Amino acid sequence: MKWPPHGSNPQYLFETLGLRMPEKITDFSANINPLGPPPVLKEKWNTIFDQISDYPDPQGAVLKKKLAEKEGIHESQILIGNGGAEIIFLIGRLLAGKKAVVVEPAFSEYEQACRTHSCDVGYHQLQPGDWEWEQRDLSSKLKDAEALFLCNPNNPTGVYYSKEIIRHLLEECLRNDCLLIVDEAFYDFVPDYEPIVSYIENYSNLLVIRSMTKMFAIPGLRLGYIMGNSKIVGKLAGYQQHWSINTPALKAGEICLESESYVAETKRLVKSEREKLFTFYEENEFTYSPSSTNFYLLKDPTAKSQLPLFRFLLENGIVPRHTMNFPGLEGDWLRFAVKGSKDNGTLMERIALWKKSSH
Amino acid sequence: MKWPPHGSNPQYLFETLGLRMPEKITDFSANINPLGPPPVLKEKWNTIFDQISDYPDPQGAVLKKKLAEKEGIHESQILIGNGGAEIIFLIGRLLAGKKAVVVEPAFSEYEQACRTHSCDVGYHQLQPGDWEWEQRDLSSKLKDAEALFLCNPNNPTGVYYSKEIIRHLLEECLRNDCLLIVDEAFYDFVPDYEPIVSYIENYSNLLVIRSMTKMFAIPGLRLGYIMGNSKIVGKLAGYQQHWSINTPALKAGEICLESESYVAETKRLVKSEREKLFTFYEENEFTYSPSSTNFYLLKDPTAKSQLPLFRFLLENGIVPRHTMNFPGLEGDWLRFAVKGSKDNGTLMERIALWKKSSH
Repeated sequence: MKWPPHGSNPQYLFETLGLRMPEKITDFSANINPLGPPPVLKEKWNTIFDQISDYPDPQGAVLKKKLAEKEGIHESQILIGNGGAEIIFLIGRLLAGKKAVVVEPAFSEYEQACRTHSCDVGYHQLQPGDWEWEQRDLSSKLKDAEALFLCNPNNPTGVYYSKEIIRHLLEECLRNDCLLIVDEAFYDFVPDYEPIVSYIENYSNLLVIRSMTKMFAIPGLRLGYIMGNSKIVGKLAGYQQHWSINTPALKAGEICLESESYVAETKRLVKSEREKLFTFYEENEFTYSPSSTNFYLLKDPTAKSQLPLFRFLLENGIVPRHTMNFPGLEGDWLRFAVKGSKDNGTLMERIALWKKSSH
Repeated sequence: MKWPPHGSNPQYLFETLGLRMPEKITDFSANINPLGPPPVLKEKWNTIFDQISDYPDPQGAVLKKKLAEKEGIHESQILIGNGGAEIIFLIGRLLAGKKAVVVEPAFSEYEQACRTHSCDVGYHQLQPGDWEWEQRDLSSKLKDAEALFLCNPNNPTGVYYSKEIIRHLLEECLRNDCLLIVDEAFYDFVPDYEPIVSYIENYSNLLVIRSMTKMFAIPGLRLGYIMGNSKIVGKLAGYQQHWSINTPALKAGEICLESESYVAETKRLVKSEREKLFTFYEENEFTYSPSSTNFYLLKDPTAKSQLPLFRFLLENGIVPRHTMNFPGLEGDWLRFAVKGSKDNGTLMERIALWKKSSH
């Protein structure tokens, strides 16, 4: 069976499993702000229409300036991308023919982008349960590697690794003449997030990837960026196709950056919903990953395979994300986005129903 | 001086030349439908907003199906791209490390995409004046080449090469085991255009590139596609990053495809405006390229350099496209879009003014 490589677009999942898609589904497979896009974006949507007859600014100068100011770095230290996916793809190009190590489990695009560019990929596997940071053997793996990928907070577990661990990894990578690529696609959902961008000044081997589509619920627009040493950022820019990011993405980015209170509100909501869900899972003896962000892994520890639960939920209009293509998970868990109160409530109902019917 | 590599985004051109940008400018440097986007797109723009919180369909299945039906080919013979630029970039990847020949002058992205992928680039130079098709020496150049690029109608000259020439080239390329890549970005402005897509059936070495952003005036959205042998199309798809084309681009494409009468109206307008301009240029003894599409090359044959005319127009709020980066032109001509009647009128006024002041 060829599993869809990513969440969202549930029609492909139902097709793969040969299941009829119920009329009403709730999609927990994409990790998007449950509040939707900030209202100001809807208000200004028509002003974007007025700009689509001009080519996008290939430099994305206005958005770049805003981002640089927000992060306190120079514009030459930022590159905007057609989603985080393009940024990761450009890094694959940078590493072409070399070797990279991925802290697993992780977003599958790192490995995919590396393989597309004939790059050798090694794993540094963290252990299911708490996925705690584990240094063992990393040093030897980095010896002939050009880069280490770390997703933080981690996708799919939601586990957040502290600034202290990052600093430690930067040193370790520096000793091995190796880049550290930290993908912070979900950083802005983490209540106790500690910024690492200032490390760019002293560590020329640090690259930080960001996404603007999760917090602002605009995955349909594709928008991400990377921050790091201006020499490496310039190299990545050289690999990028002309006009890669279109006008709606650039303009939406500019508008969303002004929505600070929206970010704070989202963070509060996600935290309280996550806590509610975790309490429920504990009461019902389900196992979940200690996530700090807007998604988590879940399993029924009494079941040998999670596939029956997966199918049960799909048939009942709940779309989890399978974990078949996450090394170290191999389908042994299901991933869920933290959604709004009503949707999470529906999910808990269905889980309770499953428990009742299967025990 | 580092000239901007493309038209549009005139701020970069004024910066390069150290000129103050006039408050009111008319941009003739981007070859976009002077009627703007079809009205139905504006009407439906808000329905697109409602879809940006979902990931785009990575297959673009709905649009692909519509395109395949329109062109009478199979869906596996089409790949949608993030603008023609991405399609060209993917071809560069396909040709990586090999050799390609470009019929010049031509859109600079072919060479750029090839060079980015360490591909050797040769020229087949057509001669200024009428840029008539000229076979001489092509055969020997194709011997060690993997691909021949032809832009038809040609950008920047606007000259259109007949179906008979294409068929002849397909045979020549086939003999040399070489791809023929025909970029038809502006085909839908050509009154007597003869479709070549049906050749895909018999010529596995044909690739046809299309753009949807010129006719539908949506360059800000980025949308193009390529048609050809499903094996090669599949290979190109393998090089493409995930979610490369965003939702506004895909949805606008679906909507625009329904606008057939709009295309016909545009074609009529562009033809009559072009004829009006050419009559004026003849009366005023300016030299122009025999364009069949929505742009053309122009020069003042009495001037040694076109740079003073270029600066004069910029200072007077008219933005032509420089030709510094077109091999075989090297700034010796200026390119202008055919715009609406009012804008073309302004251009003719300024040209008349230039003639009066410089003679």
